[in-house]
Amino acid sequence: MHALVYTDTQKLVYREEKNPKLVNNESIIKVSASGICGSDMHAYHGKDDRRVPPLILGHEISGTIEKGKEIGKKIVLNPLITCGSCNYCNNGREHLCQKRIILGMNKPIERQGGFAEYVSIPDQNIYELPKGLKIEEAPIAEPTAVAYHAVELGEKSISEKMENTKVLVIGGGAIGLLSGLILSKIKNCKNIVIVETNNKRLNECAKYLDAEAVNPDSKKIIENHFDIVFDTVGLEVTRKQAIKSIKPGGIIIHIGLTQPSGSFDFRKATLQEITFIGTYCYTNKDFEKTLEILTNKKIGSLDWIEYRKLQDGSLAFKEIHDGSCAAPKIILLT
Amino acid sequence: MHALVYTDTQKLVYREEKNPKLVNNESIIKVSASGICGSDMHAYHGKDDRRVPPLILGHEISGTIEKGKEIGKKIVLNPLITCGSCNYCNNGREHLCQKRIILGMNKPIERQGGFAEYVSIPDQNIYELPKGLKIEEAPIAEPTAVAYHAVELGEKSISEKMENTKVLVIGGGAIGLLSGLILSKIKNCKNIVIVETNNKRLNECAKYLDAEAVNPDSKKIIENHFDIVFDTVGLEVTRKQAIKSIKPGGIIIHIGLTQPSGSFDFRKATLQEITFIGTYCYTNKDFEKTLEILTNKKIGSLDWIEYRKLQDGSLAFKEIHDGSCAAPKIILLT
Repeated sequence: MHALVYTDTQKLVYREEKNPKLVNNESIIKVSASGICGSDMHAYHGKDDRRVPPLILGHEISGTIEKGKEIGKKIVLNPLITCGSCNYCNNGREHLCQKRIILGMNKPIERQGGFAEYVSIPDQNIYELPKGLKIEEAPIAEPTAVAYHAVELGEKSISEKMENTKVLVIGGGAIGLLSGLILSKIKNCKNIVIVETNNKRLNECAKYLDAEAVNPDSKKIIENHFDIVFDTVGLEVTRKQAIKSIKPGGIIIHIGLTQPSGSFDFRKATLQEITFIGTYCYTNKDFEKTLEILTNKKIGSLDWIEYRKLQDGSLAFKEIHDGSCAAPKIILLT
Repeated sequence: MHALVYTDTQKLVYREEKNPKLVNNESIIKVSASGICGSDMHAYHGKDDRRVPPLILGHEISGTIEKGKEIGKKIVLNPLITCGSCNYCNNGREHLCQKRIILGMNKPIERQGGFAEYVSIPDQNIYELPKGLKIEEAPIAEPTAVAYHAVELGEKSISEKMENTKVLVIGGGAIGLLSGLILSKIKNCKNIVIVETNNKRLNECAKYLDAEAVNPDSKKIIENHFDIVFDTVGLEVTRKQAIKSIKPGGIIIHIGLTQPSGSFDFRKATLQEITFIGTYCYTNKDFEKTLEILTNKKIGSLDWIEYRKLQDGSLAFKEIHDGSCAAPKIILLT
């Protein structure tokens, strides 16, 4: 098959690779579309020790079952593969399963990703394509589930109603925009500020999201002001902005992980009783809920997604890398 | 009046000071007993910019009303003075009031503390001495409320029943021991490890608390193991131990604040969905609940408290400083 292979730092090659093999309780998917995630970019920059070249990246995937139990069915994948039998899996927190793996990773266990003609996946990770969702848009289900899970964690922890909260979303990538859309259109938040350094992206977010769209030096980012801050970037500088702008008793939801360690203002966190919640992926229930959200078009138009051909994937990565692409999400079509 | 005055780094002088003056809606308390808190030690070490010498420290206070509306009444103080009219005060989160002050601080507003013969306090901060609690023990209400609030925050955030959780308590000072006692005797936790560097203190904790009492290098502090970790110390090294030993999906409650900033493992916090909660003081409701706990002797014997005369207070601070004192709490008697 053809695949876009990550061969070295900032290097992707569209080339011939071996087809995946069918095994018990799995299916082979003919990939229709596969989205580029921030974590794929992190790998591309040589900074992800779970994704070591050579590797086929990509875990936001839609397609058609080519081999397996339900040949011909149009589907979208939950790329998070879990053991199904541990305490976490048995208690609705599958995403914390210590045997979990995601498509498009090879450490500690290899599972090739979706930037290819075919990909293999356990049957339990296959969901029918939601009605009304185009197959090329469907990979957006995965980052939407990430954002949905993060918003739910925030809502669970906050003492007031979400619709009354003042929210700061840091980052105008897919997770930032999707978190904002869920907050605005599903949780009815009326008081959202979204902050992004790249003005092309910022303007794109502003077209779809009912929020103040600002740069990081904006006066709209008031100190000690926000009830809840979503840091979808995870840089030292964004974490500093998060802790500075959160109000006493507030919640920081940390979704991005660009810099994996750094300093933190434990003084404010303690004296002002700040809750900092790390969030990763989504539960199976979150993923199902997300498909329902997309089926019912609850987050509105998805026209902010841009599409490229898989064979042009290397250029798409480059566009995201150098900030020349306005779209918060690029999906590669096979 | 006589008072123990903090005059310089690691220097306390027992000397004559002006008596506090009675103002509207306040009382003057003849102090019976006043406990030495970790934050007093922090000031003593010259590291607290809210407590600048010369200053009378001390905010864990019991005594008798000398001047005011209910002269002669035996009382215990809630030393956290709040505005009573802001959003936090109106919603049961008085401890986050941005005008809050605590006795024994002078920045930004001066309010002399309890290491003296007399102290002034707003009437709304006065509680009747709980029945069955000796007046010299009563200052323990304040740190007990701190520990109770922290345990409640943990319980609110955790997804399983507290009694089934594996708990690590870092620090065998008053807050560590009190958190452990509340967890063990009120929340029925059966699986508690308490860790402390000072063996004298550790042995003292072990006498009263049903827990594994260990040093920081113990094999009982298993990596990725504990559902909830209470860091009552707040050093870089204890925060490292907290994040290392917390299990995926677990909660870190950060009560101590010895080092106000430092690094954090945002990678584990994010990928393993750790919740980090800073906690400070207590609500009025927590304080009242604490008095009920003490009235009903729910945390057992308080014989782990040691007592010194106020005029010997300087020596007591020195004993705590050099680790020669086994007791998790020293209370000064006026």
